[in-house]
Amino acid sequence: MQRDHASDIAAITRHPSFAAAVEKLDADHDRTVADIIALTEIPSPPFKEERRAAAYLEMLRAHGLEDVEQDEVGNVMGLRRGAGNGALMVVAAHLDTVFPEGTDVTVRREGTRLYAPGVGDDTRSLAVLLAFIRAMDAAGIRTRNDILFVGDVGEEGLGDLRGVRHLFTKGRYHEKIEAFITVDSPQVDKIVVGGVGSKRYSVRFKGPGGHSFGAFGLVNPMYAMAQAVTELGRIQVPESPRTTFCASIVGGGTSVNAIPEEAWVDIDLRSESAGELAKLDARWHEIVAAAAKQENATRSTSEGAITVEIRTLGDRPAGHTPVDADIVQYATAALRAHGFAPKHHASSTDANIPMSLGIPAIKIGSGGTGGRAHSLGEWIDVEKTASLSGMTASLATILAVAGFLGE
Amino acid sequence: MQRDHASDIAAITRHPSFAAAVEKLDADHDRTVADIIALTEIPSPPFKEERRAAAYLEMLRAHGLEDVEQDEVGNVMGLRRGAGNGALMVVAAHLDTVFPEGTDVTVRREGTRLYAPGVGDDTRSLAVLLAFIRAMDAAGIRTRNDILFVGDVGEEGLGDLRGVRHLFTKGRYHEKIEAFITVDSPQVDKIVVGGVGSKRYSVRFKGPGGHSFGAFGLVNPMYAMAQAVTELGRIQVPESPRTTFCASIVGGGTSVNAIPEEAWVDIDLRSESAGELAKLDARWHEIVAAAAKQENATRSTSEGAITVEIRTLGDRPAGHTPVDADIVQYATAALRAHGFAPKHHASSTDANIPMSLGIPAIKIGSGGTGGRAHSLGEWIDVEKTASLSGMTASLATILAVAGFLGE
Repeated sequence: MQRDHASDIAAITRHPSFAAAVEKLDADHDRTVADIIALTEIPSPPFKEERRAAAYLEMLRAHGLEDVEQDEVGNVMGLRRGAGNGALMVVAAHLDTVFPEGTDVTVRREGTRLYAPGVGDDTRSLAVLLAFIRAMDAAGIRTRNDILFVGDVGEEGLGDLRGVRHLFTKGRYHEKIEAFITVDSPQVDKIVVGGVGSKRYSVRFKGPGGHSFGAFGLVNPMYAMAQAVTELGRIQVPESPRTTFCASIVGGGTSVNAIPEEAWVDIDLRSESAGELAKLDARWHEIVAAAAKQENATRSTSEGAITVEIRTLGDRPAGHTPVDADIVQYATAALRAHGFAPKHHASSTDANIPMSLGIPAIKIGSGGTGGRAHSLGEWIDVEKTASLSGMTASLATILAVAGFLGE
Repeated sequence: MQRDHASDIAAITRHPSFAAAVEKLDADHDRTVADIIALTEIPSPPFKEERRAAAYLEMLRAHGLEDVEQDEVGNVMGLRRGAGNGALMVVAAHLDTVFPEGTDVTVRREGTRLYAPGVGDDTRSLAVLLAFIRAMDAAGIRTRNDILFVGDVGEEGLGDLRGVRHLFTKGRYHEKIEAFITVDSPQVDKIVVGGVGSKRYSVRFKGPGGHSFGAFGLVNPMYAMAQAVTELGRIQVPESPRTTFCASIVGGGTSVNAIPEEAWVDIDLRSESAGELAKLDARWHEIVAAAAKQENATRSTSEGAITVEIRTLGDRPAGHTPVDADIVQYATAALRAHGFAPKHHASSTDANIPMSLGIPAIKIGSGGTGGRAHSLGEWIDVEKTASLSGMTASLATILAVAGFLGE
């Protein structure tokens, strides 16, 4: 049976218990802002989310969830039991920020704006999930499915989605999750339905080195590296599905009068399509091998040949949730019902993992506005009307996917 | 009239006053060793030769030279007046070492070996020049030409021969010097008659940068740098005159998920031939310009184009002194007369500057043996017999070029 997603959303939003939930969000606004500030000021650098995770674990427990726990990789979670057959959906926000240890994470408030590293990406969402739980509880909202609320680790950069990857591959719920919603950053009108996959490598070319004049003629890893980067730059990629490559960081050598002993380059390969990403990845490996081989054939290997070490810096699977999937259609209808003009996007988020496994997944927003994410000037606006409008749309989406039963 | 260099050398070495000079070198051996240690233990890092220069200035003064002074760039010098028409030759050793400030320059003695950074390159020669002055004075040796004894700055690395360059282009004697001998490092059997010229550049490619995925398609300075390095590696250079190139140090980029704003490479170009060096240099400039142009034609310049900054790190002119020049033939004959098997070499020394100007110039040695120059394990052997044998040959060379008149 084809569902009428707009009607389903309308049925939710006009239900008295939904109105009660929204009233609670409204009444709790200052508390939500206080939670945002409190969580933002607990540093959560990459691979060092422990302190914030511990605090969030206690908050989940205080919100009356069941089976509150921390898993082996550091994710914290708790269950809001549904009334139905035990089908499980996840609603997640990520605990980690991009900022290194020692970054000043003190929140500065100017009017309705909060300034601090990580305040919008993704700390606000952690507080918003708590507000959702309180609102559902205050309104006595029941859902058919169980909802697992998760604060996950390792979403950013070299974290490489390790928290959600664990959740879907090894965690105790990993075979049971049937839908996944990550609430990430304030903006709500961009629904992420495509997971841009990426492969990131640090490729190190090594050789014997030597004096620039005295040892001239020996293989030089710089030429192999340069050849590989030049060939990378020549790859033709499709515009759609969007597929990209980037030679990002390069280094090597110690003295202007010496043939270097090594030269390395960090590269980033991405695609919305798992197939295109695999093609690009295979081509890069060919290029690297050919560049080393060519340098070894061009100059002397009498003191040693060029060798290559490829280290994986990141590996995020590509995937997508079909636009006609219920999860996408509910989010779209919920946003429209709240006056937004939703668009479907592809990006790299925690949703990549379930998408790559064929599990319906999207990214939605925490409400309000914000900017300068990943910079020290990061900010969000917690002005009440805009904040509640976005939060209400996101709550409607979650309830629709969870199977809203009213009170 | 063709000179018989071997006969001229024989006439010097069998002269009683030369024997008296050698006797003085022998008698003064411990003092010479003490001078080596004292000078080595005065740090003389690149561009920071002041302390050693001041000490050496006072030593030159104490040795009774005339017009003892320090010039604008830091060279110290004094004149030993000749008896003739005032023609001038220079005998130089360099004050600077390759070692940075803070390097422990304490001399450690084991038997006849002295261990310390810079002890052989070129501190020993500074002490040996003083020994030569004392020996000539003790023996009452007169020469036809004036001899300017010089402790010069900036021979090593980025010093770029600035001391001797100044001496020959702007110093008060610059139009009068008719011959140049640098005493550099212990080894005497390698007479340097060719000056390997070099050009060193740091080439920086700059672009607008951007997100690796979001801004894909914008110009990336890494590809321009890589293209230039690849093309450098393809240049065909002659084996003789020996001509070389090297991509030595590379850097750029800050994050694996960003198109870098800059990428740079330091390169080293060298040749024994000024003409070949100029050809190589011109080709490199073409390559750099073409690489930037190609990247700007290949990807989008909507946010800004690739630009290039070329900074000169070093510029040492190539040159040579003909093997049949008197200065080379005298050095060769003097070494043979002392049982050495001299060979003619090309290298990069202070002699590059006069060679490039067509002024007869060579590098000779300070005597004895040594090793591991430019490393913290640098050492020399001051065993008396070997030391005196090399010093005697070098003194004979200097006296022949200066026009030995006996007492």
